[in-house]
Amino acid sequence: MDPGVAFGQVLRALRRDAGLSQEQLAFAAEIERNFVSLIERGVNQPSIRVIFKLAQALGLPPSKMIFLVEEKLESSA
Amino acid sequence: MDPGVAFGQVLRALRRDAGLSQEQLAFAAEIERNFVSLIERGVNQPSIRVIFKLAQALGLPPSKMIFLVEEKLESSA
Repeated sequence: MDPGVAFGQVLRALRRDAGLSQEQLAFAAEIERNFVSLIERGVNQPSIRVIFKLAQALGLPPSKMIFLVEEKLESSA
Repeated sequence: MDPGVAFGQVLRALRRDAGLSQEQLAFAAEIERNFVSLIERGVNQPSIRVIFKLAQALGLPPSKMIFLVEEKLESSA
């Protein structure tokens, strides 16, 4: 599985756990409204800056998000 | 400090610790030769996919790299 696809799935799960819509997360992370959807669907790859913005908006360290992506990749291997 | 700039500094330090030139790291990570230089100088932002490739080439988990970036950002705050 591509890391971008895995990141999108992790992002969607974390967003839902936080009870946020894509629009609410995009607003909180100060990124384009449809960019959350594009990332969640694995269409766009987030940059390091966007990863930090999303993590801050979701209230967890970016390294924790990346750790969850690593776990997803291992479990799908 | 911008996360992209912090990532570049962490990447440079890890690359030097590994005793690799920019060309050697780019080859090992299967990315463009000059892309390592652009990332290290904070000119380009790595995507999640490139972060995973660089971490693999350097032999550490991507989440560890991002943790080092978080530490650098905290120490520069």
